[in-house]
Amino acid sequence: MVKVYIVGVGLTKIGRFFDKGLRELFAEAAFKALDEIGNETVQALVIGNMTSSSLGEQDNLGALLADYAGLGKIPAFKVEAACGSGGVAVYTGYSLVASGMFDIVMVGGVEKETEYPTRIVSKALAQAADAEYELFHGISFTGLNALVMRMYMNEYNVSRDEMSIWPVLMHKNAVKNPYAQFRFEITKEQVAKSMMVADPIRLLDSSPIGDGAAALILASDKVAKKLTDTPIEVAGLGMATDHIYVAYRENILSFKATILAAKKAYETAKVCPKNIDVAEVHDAFTVLGFMNLEDLGFSERGKTPKLMDEGRFWPGDKPTVNPSGGLKARGHPVGATGVYQVAEVVMQLRGDFPGVNVGGDIGLAQSIGGLGTTVTVIILKR
Amino acid sequence: MVKVYIVGVGLTKIGRFFDKGLRELFAEAAFKALDEIGNETVQALVIGNMTSSSLGEQDNLGALLADYAGLGKIPAFKVEAACGSGGVAVYTGYSLVASGMFDIVMVGGVEKETEYPTRIVSKALAQAADAEYELFHGISFTGLNALVMRMYMNEYNVSRDEMSIWPVLMHKNAVKNPYAQFRFEITKEQVAKSMMVADPIRLLDSSPIGDGAAALILASDKVAKKLTDTPIEVAGLGMATDHIYVAYRENILSFKATILAAKKAYETAKVCPKNIDVAEVHDAFTVLGFMNLEDLGFSERGKTPKLMDEGRFWPGDKPTVNPSGGLKARGHPVGATGVYQVAEVVMQLRGDFPGVNVGGDIGLAQSIGGLGTTVTVIILKR
Repeated sequence: MVKVYIVGVGLTKIGRFFDKGLRELFAEAAFKALDEIGNETVQALVIGNMTSSSLGEQDNLGALLADYAGLGKIPAFKVEAACGSGGVAVYTGYSLVASGMFDIVMVGGVEKETEYPTRIVSKALAQAADAEYELFHGISFTGLNALVMRMYMNEYNVSRDEMSIWPVLMHKNAVKNPYAQFRFEITKEQVAKSMMVADPIRLLDSSPIGDGAAALILASDKVAKKLTDTPIEVAGLGMATDHIYVAYRENILSFKATILAAKKAYETAKVCPKNIDVAEVHDAFTVLGFMNLEDLGFSERGKTPKLMDEGRFWPGDKPTVNPSGGLKARGHPVGATGVYQVAEVVMQLRGDFPGVNVGGDIGLAQSIGGLGTTVTVIILKR
Repeated sequence: MVKVYIVGVGLTKIGRFFDKGLRELFAEAAFKALDEIGNETVQALVIGNMTSSSLGEQDNLGALLADYAGLGKIPAFKVEAACGSGGVAVYTGYSLVASGMFDIVMVGGVEKETEYPTRIVSKALAQAADAEYELFHGISFTGLNALVMRMYMNEYNVSRDEMSIWPVLMHKNAVKNPYAQFRFEITKEQVAKSMMVADPIRLLDSSPIGDGAAALILASDKVAKKLTDTPIEVAGLGMATDHIYVAYRENILSFKATILAAKKAYETAKVCPKNIDVAEVHDAFTVLGFMNLEDLGFSERGKTPKLMDEGRFWPGDKPTVNPSGGLKARGHPVGATGVYQVAEVVMQLRGDFPGVNVGGDIGLAQSIGGLGTTVTVIILKR
């Protein structure tokens, strides 16, 4: 198998951009990534996106974006795995290089949500769950996550204020991140008093809706060192899925797909959780952040809120978690998020992330589509 | 690069199934394909689908289908390239095996359209074109194809009746295909008198809306011969894209993406057009069938209707074209179509296609997303 490196990254700021559509956002990220490799020719493009079909009335997105960004008549297509689309795009782009089919592949993620009414966006995002078995009965995606948060707090006897450390730390980390959607600090009191969205999830437990795009350039070992002095190796990948219908799960306080994907990624990278210097994990809602750290082997079940309150996972700790600010504060442009995470970890390891940069040799990115339904875990090495 | 073989196929009949949704259709095809390999464990799943997001309110389709078909917690995701999604799914599945990441990968295609009103389906299918530059102005996807048909007839001085040989032959071929949507013959007179859809495209120039699913099992050379006595090699693949906005094209009587994809596929398979025994090509509308045969190097520009009228491309000729009945008569369950084509060519080469079976050693499948925007060409060898 051909070894795969990441040789270029490009990000847009995440926010509400009335003057930018899917194509403009993607091109901005793509051009930045191309700049890093001297505008070398990209041979194929894989796009992660969730809502262009349901909200944007646009399919054939791969070809459209390759064309608009001037990449030429190259193979280009979209992959979709709900909010996990970005991680799956990286996974797919990896296989195109690892197979020897291409030496230089761009992986993009892009999402455009803010021009639609919130109720329409909420409905589109709910398509991550089972339309016939779950949504049909009226539960929203936030509602599903609220069940998990309630159960986590009950099972492990964790208070509202203990949970609040997650969004507080995320906002703190995001202040320095120029790409982040929310660059201001919040307090536990503000979290506890913010609007109730789906009991016990409050507004400040929730990742925002936002537009954004990210691009990576993957290259084979043959060409990677010609394109950059700082190639970052894709050392391990894992993907797994689970019953989409949450009622079928044995346990909703742990995502089996994360455990399986992480096992595969750790094995292929030949590392274990304690080797990870920096991790970007999926925290669409407060409770997911804690659960994911537990499933990834970084923390003990139910103890994570307390540990984080005591300083665990803060910048400088090993692993530092979500120095970008995470989905909560960096933002969550759905199908782009998994690509942002990988780009951020690459910059952490290169030492040029323009926000909280903790450095390190080994990083991890975890992305989820649905309520733990499709999970990718990607391990990067300097 | 690991050599890749197709070791199992499964198809559903294409039609209007009020009692079957996306999951039931896919499972039916998947079980048939699994039967062919003694229910050996599949390690990953790639799904081609266009409209589950826009019509079906369902994302995260890969995980949902892997779960429902009982494939376990394997990596599973959807790829989308409009009507070309099926071909792109095969391409992606190929890379997962060719890379050495997996030994046994299922590629599925599934589409469910008939339960929605036709105007809603037409709108969803139009998402294959550029939403902002084309659809915004009110043109439908059939309208775009009508411009091409009008220009083809004018440029090459081809009459209505000469064009009609395509649907006539397709319906004739489909009569024996048990999976086909239309199993009855039609005459040139019936084509010429059928309802006008978008001048000069008439109803019988158009592929139908239909539900259906197809599944393939891809395997590495290491395991292929253990799974079947009749592995069919994926000998060559090509994919290319073009300007999605048709007004940017140099020429709309030839699809550059087909030419580029075919060139790559012929080169990698080390064959040329005259070596192809059987071909399944994309004929969503009459004119596309003729144009595609010309772009694939099987025929001279503008001469194809006359040649076909004289018996060229009929069963037994080299290549035999669309012995399945093509999109026109086998049917066109959009994201599944490219998977049907590959499955049909596999069966042709194995000698067990239950319709018009012409046999042969080398076959080709061409799939298009949009108006020549995303094209895959896949060459199979016995």
